[in-house]
Amino acid sequence: MKQVTLPNGMHDKLFKRARVTYEIERNISDFLMAQGFNRIDTPTLEHFEVFGDSIEASHYHLFDKKGHLLALRPDVTSQIGRVIASTRVHTPTKFSYSGKVFHYNEELRGLANELSQAGIEIIGYPVRQAVLEAIQSAKQSLDLAQVRSYQFEFSHAAILKTILEKLKLDEQEEARLLDHIRKKNMTGLYEFTQANPSEFDEFLQKLPCLFGPSRQVLDQARKLLENQQILAALDDLEDMLVQLSDLLPASTMDLGQVASMPYYTGLTFKVFGEKVPAAFLSGGRYDQLFERFGADQLTAVGWTLDIDSVYQAIHDDLPDENGKEGGSR
Amino acid sequence: MKQVTLPNGMHDKLFKRARVTYEIERNISDFLMAQGFNRIDTPTLEHFEVFGDSIEASHYHLFDKKGHLLALRPDVTSQIGRVIASTRVHTPTKFSYSGKVFHYNEELRGLANELSQAGIEIIGYPVRQAVLEAIQSAKQSLDLAQVRSYQFEFSHAAILKTILEKLKLDEQEEARLLDHIRKKNMTGLYEFTQANPSEFDEFLQKLPCLFGPSRQVLDQARKLLENQQILAALDDLEDMLVQLSDLLPASTMDLGQVASMPYYTGLTFKVFGEKVPAAFLSGGRYDQLFERFGADQLTAVGWTLDIDSVYQAIHDDLPDENGKEGGSR
Repeated sequence: MKQVTLPNGMHDKLFKRARVTYEIERNISDFLMAQGFNRIDTPTLEHFEVFGDSIEASHYHLFDKKGHLLALRPDVTSQIGRVIASTRVHTPTKFSYSGKVFHYNEELRGLANELSQAGIEIIGYPVRQAVLEAIQSAKQSLDLAQVRSYQFEFSHAAILKTILEKLKLDEQEEARLLDHIRKKNMTGLYEFTQANPSEFDEFLQKLPCLFGPSRQVLDQARKLLENQQILAALDDLEDMLVQLSDLLPASTMDLGQVASMPYYTGLTFKVFGEKVPAAFLSGGRYDQLFERFGADQLTAVGWTLDIDSVYQAIHDDLPDENGKEGGSR
Repeated sequence: MKQVTLPNGMHDKLFKRARVTYEIERNISDFLMAQGFNRIDTPTLEHFEVFGDSIEASHYHLFDKKGHLLALRPDVTSQIGRVIASTRVHTPTKFSYSGKVFHYNEELRGLANELSQAGIEIIGYPVRQAVLEAIQSAKQSLDLAQVRSYQFEFSHAAILKTILEKLKLDEQEEARLLDHIRKKNMTGLYEFTQANPSEFDEFLQKLPCLFGPSRQVLDQARKLLENQQILAALDDLEDMLVQLSDLLPASTMDLGQVASMPYYTGLTFKVFGEKVPAAFLSGGRYDQLFERFGADQLTAVGWTLDIDSVYQAIHDDLPDENGKEGGSR
């Protein structure tokens, strides 16, 4: 008998799960195209350098027959950065996409290593207009997918970037600090500041609590900091949320949000909901991505929606199919 | 400046090409689901053994971190064979799918190494009903995609299988013979029969001409052969075409058609059209695929449509988008 198991993190989707995830992807793709987002389809394989300067343990790599190291794309935004920088595509422009991306996780938590995403990029437009359109289209996409309750949570990539630049940690220390921040580990952060004292001590110690209604979080944060770059990031964040107040009257913040991708430079956001541990959707500004590929900086904002998380949130509300296997294995 | 070229055979689809290929995939997927084909979504990565007993040079391979050799799927049908053999999915059943598959070709002819496909599998139903439904849904899918003129061309996998089994060639000789057949190389085939005389000499020498209207091809072929297995295959082919005569009143055959996948066991078909060198669609019966995965033989028939070939056939008829880049790079 042949090998019939699946590789680590790979899954079959059958029946209801396959149909509904297809429909989520189709409905959102159709909607985004109708809203003027040009469809783009970038390849599954790229030279690994498109996704970073070094080999990431969480990427799938292979050599082609000429000895070039390729990666299975871990995200699409970097690819669109490459397209903008290397083709004659005119900006401003808006793109939408959907498809598979790949993250290598060990099987500890039964995580999926192949993810289905849909997303947009708004490139070269004035910032406020671009952010407003990004948030609006994210909200409409979640509504279209019939996600019943969800919450936008904002942060700003410049906050942690500034701290990390000043602290000049080695790679391991930096990873440990980010892990403490991600896990809201107050003891860990306290011990970190004892070992690495800086102007950010008070801010880092309180960071696990700096989440909640936006106004309140901003007030608290400003009292803990004197760094001009971070204070400017908080002003930028406040300014954006004023712009978005009609759309999101009750937004929240989490200043301990670690950006899902390293290319984010400004406002970032994640959307959380019931029944799903991870974010449905994450996004932000990534103006400097194009410089990686030798092009000029451009105002850019985008988001990515995780189709399987959306399915997880809505599938209990959907009727089962008669006499059919419902789940993936 | 970073590496901004694409790996061999990888392409970006932008604007019209991206939109129209998306729409072809969506319209065919929606149609097939509405016709009762259950959507299935199998993973991009599998253990390489799912696709064959040995390492194929035309597959993309990589090792996962446990040292297992994986392949980027070169086709979906083998995966569905694995699903049927290894899960509790009840048969008879009908599946539809769409997505990316990967074939490693050298860049000689600018071939795409990532292909967009849509397809179906009909498993466990009575043969005639299954073949009729397969051909009908293939035709309807091409009509839906607005392919204006196309031609079904039939053959039978048992013809070449029988010849190869009897001739007992080594791997290289077999590859050379198949290459002569594919290229309709009469001189090559004549020389082959001189070097490897057998009961099939006359048939092999005339094989490059055994294509055209079905009735005519069948009559010619029967005069060239006495092998009972091949004559039975021709009877099977004739019987199927009688069943299909309402649907395809003017079918053609090409007995020199080399099956696109090694798992085909019976009737095979390819659909060709104007403006496109390769087949839009190919399919056939593959009853023994399940045995590979330790399950019983099942009546099975399926087809795969190449979305990029369909785009190539129809894109001249479509309006261009204003002021936008149209092509892939």
